Amino acid sequence: MDFKELHYGVAERVAVLRFQRPERMNAWTPLLETELRQALALAEQDEDVRCIVLTGAGRAFCAGMDMEVLRQGDGQQRSGPLAEGRRYAFMDRIDKPLVAAINGAAAGVGLCLALYCDLRFVAAGAKLTAPYARRGLVAEHGIAWLLPRLVGPMHAADLLLSGRTLLADEAERMGLAHQLPAEGFLEAVLERARDLANATSPRAVRTMKRQLREARSQTLLEATDVADREIAACRGTEDFREGVQHFIEKRAPRFTGR
Amino acid sequence: MDFKELHYGVAERVAVLRFQRPERMNAWTPLLETELRQALALAEQDEDVRCIVLTGAGRAFCAGMDMEVLRQGDGQQRSGPLAEGRRYAFMDRIDKPLVAAINGAAAGVGLCLALYCDLRFVAAGAKLTAPYARRGLVAEHGIAWLLPRLVGPMHAADLLLSGRTLLADEAERMGLAHQLPAEGFLEAVLERARDLANATSPRAVRTMKRQLREARSQTLLEATDVADREIAACRGTEDFREGVQHFIEKRAPRFTGR
Amino acid sequence: MDFKELHYGVAERVAVLRFQRPERMNAWTPLLETELRQALALAEQDEDVRCIVLTGAGRAFCAGMDMEVLRQGDGQQRSGPLAEGRRYAFMDRIDKPLVAAINGAAAGVGLCLALYCDLRFVAAGAKLTAPYARRGLVAEHGIAWLLPRLVGPMHAADLLLSGRTLLADEAERMGLAHQLPAEGFLEAVLERARDLANATSPRAVRTMKRQLREARSQTLLEATDVADREIAACRGTEDFREGVQHFIEKRAPRFTGR
Repeated sequence: MDFKELHYGVAERVAVLRFQRPERMNAWTPLLETELRQALALAEQDEDVRCIVLTGAGRAFCAGMDMEVLRQGDGQQRSGPLAEGRRYAFMDRIDKPLVAAINGAAAGVGLCLALYCDLRFVAAGAKLTAPYARRGLVAEHGIAWLLPRLVGPMHAADLLLSGRTLLADEAERMGLAHQLPAEGFLEAVLERARDLANATSPRAVRTMKRQLREARSQTLLEATDVADREIAACRGTEDFREGVQHFIEKRAPRFTGR
Repeated sequence: MDFKELHYGVAERVAVLRFQRPERMNAWTPLLETELRQALALAEQDEDVRCIVLTGAGRAFCAGMDMEVLRQGDGQQRSGPLAEGRRYAFMDRIDKPLVAAINGAAAGVGLCLALYCDLRFVAAGAKLTAPYARRGLVAEHGIAWLLPRLVGPMHAADLLLSGRTLLADEAERMGLAHQLPAEGFLEAVLERARDLANATSPRAVRTMKRQLREARSQTLLEATDVADREIAACRGTEDFREGVQHFIEKRAPRFTGR
Repeated sequence: MDFKELHYGVAERVAVLRFQRPERMNAWTPLLETELRQALALAEQDEDVRCIVLTGAGRAFCAGMDMEVLRQGDGQQRSGPLAEGRRYAFMDRIDKPLVAAINGAAAGVGLCLALYCDLRFVAAGAKLTAPYARRGLVAEHGIAWLLPRLVGPMHAADLLLSGRTLLADEAERMGLAHQLPAEGFLEAVLERARDLANATSPRAVRTMKRQLREARSQTLLEATDVADREIAACRGTEDFREGVQHFIEKRAPRFTGR
């Protein structure tokens, strides 16, 4: 796969997808969106990939929609992100852990992309913003659903209604992301990602991602019934046997995902 | 409009509604409730108002239901707040940002009123409490719904089941309110309110308040569909054009709300 | 009632249920589960009990399923916790305050039990973990429902997908539990429990527990309607009269629960 605005690499079971328009703060374009979809599909299908990291080249994570694209949205044409109603909701259904490594500024659609991940790490000093209110726009791509569930209704209203800029430490205090030092940031995130990829059972992880997703609209009893069925289904799987075995033998696990 | 137990004023697009019974810690009365409704209706209808602040005169925000009213509720009469089932839920549908400036003690219904706001600021040292368990009462006015969504089920159970008093800094730690120094408190809140009122598009704000409200009971996909329709509807609006234009021209925005 | 793996005692209206297998870190067994059910039923029925505390004997709260039981689960037999789909969801419907005093390590089912409580206190230095991903298991007993509601979807995904160990102070920062010093830990929790048991109306507490439980799946308007009905139902109750009276007389309350 040959990407133009994104860099894709796999090492130690972790796929890293890096937005690659540093000269434009990785501002979002239709091509970048297309390539993100393709790269995520690649990582999903690759059995050797057990964790997926999104990050940005250069100083920014993603500074939002490219202003040139936004200006064209104010015209008559029917193509482009503002017209087509493109959705990132498919990211919510990826069954491998998605980790956002927010190395620098994340604005608008850049912040939305990070919110679709399971985990978010943010480099100290990075600025986050959903500036829709200041542009006469509205809450895009499910951020009005994701943000209140993540940080509660007050912080969500604060960020969306004011469009103000948030620094990494305030983001951490409100539970939006884990903060890490800017120095050695990506390596520190990759260490966590490698642990997720290598110390855990892929079968357990994909099942629990589904449990978490379904539990959103279940009652507690329904979620408990699912849990009971899933626990029963674990019996006799390779991953469960290995999970107990490596613990007893005090060695690193060799999970197969079956 | 002539109010007796409330002071109403508008400046720089911010309406300030101040409970005006300082000699009774702004304890709640049927008249104060009526005047709050009238003042909120006034602020909603006034096109010049883009943000609404609730606060209290004197040392308290609102010390809860006036004890005299509460004692009457323990009798046979069928009138008064305890009998009629008055509701503050209409506050949840106001489409301008509501900000609680909790200048001092907020108890019972006083805390409920603050919880209906989008943002809450609390002065250092202020005491908050929902003392129902200690009065033999129950969770009033939707607080059993609002509080767990705001601070999570544990803190909500803690506050409601114990009826204990919370200081401003614990309120901040649990995400109930942003804490600000007592010195210069109202002015600091008004600065944030003026920014909300003057730097953002009224069209964007009212649409996002609706998106946040509806997202509570939507699936992520439903919320994404709404977002896509609303983004398309932005195109060609005055506020979107102005939102991009003032950014490019690096000047203060002049939003019309259309 | 004669228990083998659990100690049961009542003092000052607080029932303390202590897991009593310190030599096995209170690892979970079918008998312990049975005894927990019996002890909770006892505490529910006892009119003199107004608050229930769960804790562990020795260094641990509960180190999870006993490894011997877990190994048997990997066989053919149809009995035992892994086969029968036992559920702790009944704990969610107990109408007295449930307090977890997490005196030491809480892992797997031990953490689940704590999550079913209304309040959680954790001793400084205690370790918490849901290690399912590292054992090839899945999210048991409703933890995939309870955890995201308590600490938000990111921390829930972090803990479940990684299976990592959490220290008490991180647990406090993410809102999972209140941290207290290890020295004098149980006594400090009991002080809070005694306040819950003696300063509040049992009628108010059981009504509010129901309001909180029902509010999870209600709209704000529905929750407000319930609140209005319940406030009207308070009128004329003994606990409401006593709640106002003791406040006016500045004395300790004598609630009957009626």
